[in-house]
Amino acid sequence: MLYDALVDAEALRAVTRGQCFCVGKRAGRRSVRQETIIAVMIRAARAGKRVVRLKGGDPFVFGRGAEEALALAMAGIPFEVVPGVTSATAAPALAGIPVTHRGIASAFLVVSGHAIEAFDAGTQAVRPNAVSLVVLMGLGERAAVASRLLAQGWKADTPAAVVCAASTPDEWTWTGSLAQLGTVQPPDGLPGVLIIGEVVRVREVLATASRPAEAGNEVSYGRNR
Amino acid sequence: MLYDALVDAEALRAVTRGQCFCVGKRAGRRSVRQETIIAVMIRAARAGKRVVRLKGGDPFVFGRGAEEALALAMAGIPFEVVPGVTSATAAPALAGIPVTHRGIASAFLVVSGHAIEAFDAGTQAVRPNAVSLVVLMGLGERAAVASRLLAQGWKADTPAAVVCAASTPDEWTWTGSLAQLGTVQPPDGLPGVLIIGEVVRVREVLATASRPAEAGNEVSYGRNR
Repeated sequence: MLYDALVDAEALRAVTRGQCFCVGKRAGRRSVRQETIIAVMIRAARAGKRVVRLKGGDPFVFGRGAEEALALAMAGIPFEVVPGVTSATAAPALAGIPVTHRGIASAFLVVSGHAIEAFDAGTQAVRPNAVSLVVLMGLGERAAVASRLLAQGWKADTPAAVVCAASTPDEWTWTGSLAQLGTVQPPDGLPGVLIIGEVVRVREVLATASRPAEAGNEVSYGRNR
Repeated sequence: MLYDALVDAEALRAVTRGQCFCVGKRAGRRSVRQETIIAVMIRAARAGKRVVRLKGGDPFVFGRGAEEALALAMAGIPFEVVPGVTSATAAPALAGIPVTHRGIASAFLVVSGHAIEAFDAGTQAVRPNAVSLVVLMGLGERAAVASRLLAQGWKADTPAAVVCAASTPDEWTWTGSLAQLGTVQPPDGLPGVLIIGEVVRVREVLATASRPAEAGNEVSYGRNR
């Protein structure tokens, strides 16, 4: 099994057989090159091994899964794709933020913040403030993401959220405005998803609505804290 | 448990305890009204029952899950949201279509085709042919979806796909062009996802690349047939 750094340790503990290699970026190490990952998979498959390529999230959402699939197809290696739960929708949901909501947003755009040129190309395709925006792998570039969106005409008071390490015990959520997004200080070393748009307000309404009951009951919505 | 019509029969067979009610649309019956679903959940929770609201896909992606969450929060009922695998990314993946791919698409827009006005609002926000487009609940409106996109300036030869009943034994996939999308005849009674954009070509490349090996090996990619 070849797995990424984002795969949860608990999931790995469920693996009881076979060899496991982390090919993602870890403390003190660079990630294994894509061509090497593909070469290792093909070599192992040709040696008659059953290869599992485990990724955090969905392999076909900014996961380079299709590149790996194409390489396998060209090598004549049979494979099956198993879709996953993408953080593009799961991280907002766990924070109480729907990516669509009646009367607020009827569409959402998912874009990567990893390479700011690709981010520009993706977001320039959309009219500012017209859809919910979900930015994957954009935590480190949050200042650039915010300034590019403001330059593109997104309103400074557009609600914005950062959800780090969604679904793990380290889950951390911030909400504020697009103007504040660039200066947020999330905990170090966690992956994060950015959500920009009016839908972020749903989390605040959920929190407000839940508050009166908190005295009496244990009210929890998603994993907010 | 209250479940939707799209929930798989196999998943339901795993439920061994408690009462189960389908609140979705079934042959010969209309779906239960949203207000009734909410009222039943609140009544059951107040009676001390543990209520599961099971939906196909992700509850916060055009699933009205946030509306239900808000109603529960306002009623002081504690709840937890469990994200699901949305067909917005899973259906394309199972058909061998990544919603993003290096050099082809750096962003994807997800929109509902259920109400054509909301579809217009969502798609008019985006520059034609600039991102991958995923249309949920748009199978019945495929002719309107295609004609609206063409009117908005999307190119007639933009690759398009229809994936019905993804992940089930009835899975059915069609690919062609946006100009042909309106006249596709999928099998009756299946839900379907539409994908419009250059990424659809990845499926064709996968199929072509896999072909030489088919004589010797069992090559499968996703559940294509």
